[in-house]
Amino acid sequence: MVPPQITSTAAKTFQFGAITIPLSQTFLVSKLSYALVNLKPIRPGHVLIAPRRRTMRFNDLTSEEVTDLFAQGQRVSKVVERMFNAESLTLCIQDGPQAGQSVPHVHLHVIPRHQGDFPDNDDIYDVLEGDRTKKKQPHIDNDERKPRSAQEMAEEAEMLRKELTGWNEGAE
Amino acid sequence: MVPPQITSTAAKTFQFGAITIPLSQTFLVSKLSYALVNLKPIRPGHVLIAPRRRTMRFNDLTSEEVTDLFAQGQRVSKVVERMFNAESLTLCIQDGPQAGQSVPHVHLHVIPRHQGDFPDNDDIYDVLEGDRTKKKQPHIDNDERKPRSAQEMAEEAEMLRKELTGWNEGAE
Repeated sequence: MVPPQITSTAAKTFQFGAITIPLSQTFLVSKLSYALVNLKPIRPGHVLIAPRRRTMRFNDLTSEEVTDLFAQGQRVSKVVERMFNAESLTLCIQDGPQAGQSVPHVHLHVIPRHQGDFPDNDDIYDVLEGDRTKKKQPHIDNDERKPRSAQEMAEEAEMLRKELTGWNEGAE
Repeated sequence: MVPPQITSTAAKTFQFGAITIPLSQTFLVSKLSYALVNLKPIRPGHVLIAPRRRTMRFNDLTSEEVTDLFAQGQRVSKVVERMFNAESLTLCIQDGPQAGQSVPHVHLHVIPRHQGDFPDNDDIYDVLEGDRTKKKQPHIDNDERKPRSAQEMAEEAEMLRKELTGWNEGAE
């Protein structure tokens, strides 16, 4: 039985906190999770995986949701690492506001990493946590990254869907 | 059947990359994963969860190992958040050297977070990725944190074991 909060794919949208995500910005839909492209990716290929049920904290997830989230996380991370020619990945959940969570809906960041991708290897997190006090690298500052167009996001989602056989086979 | 690389608890040690972890520094042992305290925690309650099989990348894990790792991750994160009076958690896998992975063995960092725990909220990652170029917060610099004693680690592990009913019931 599907819990009532789960968004149906028939509706063609998903709930991400208070944000409504169109199906065109998703590229993997399973029974309990979905993967979406990013409005303001930190790095090319920075994508998110979320439970379909709107819930804030990692410990709010059922064991079935945890299992599904990271099973999809493995599928997604494999594809983005290959498609974005990465050598490593940052996999991170900011679990609560004091950990930098901006959207109150559990989400796993999957971020392709390359040698030298940031002047300091860990500056990626300055952006991830949206720190506004560090201005020394304005080109990666959260506030100065331009949101991508709907078309650009749809094209990236489409490209990733092609790499994920049965990308929505688990959807109901 | 237990894969041959899995360390038996009978041996009273676990392999973490090339490092041998004594049972006294672990506080949760399941069939496929174990949780360990940290030699140099970034914050109080910063612990690690690893697959018992020695393997480097997230995508090297079997689906059973992924499921178990994050199931134990939920149990552990719930306990450390409570025991260390945290409000949020940072959950992170540095998946490969270009993402700051220092020990070539998959491990999930679970780090209790509090409001204002670092001068900049995300400075935690400067330490997590062991960045040596940032010297403005020497008190949290990786190089200057003193390794804890075996006794201190054993006491913390013992404290956490008491909170985890059946802490080694999944062990073989």
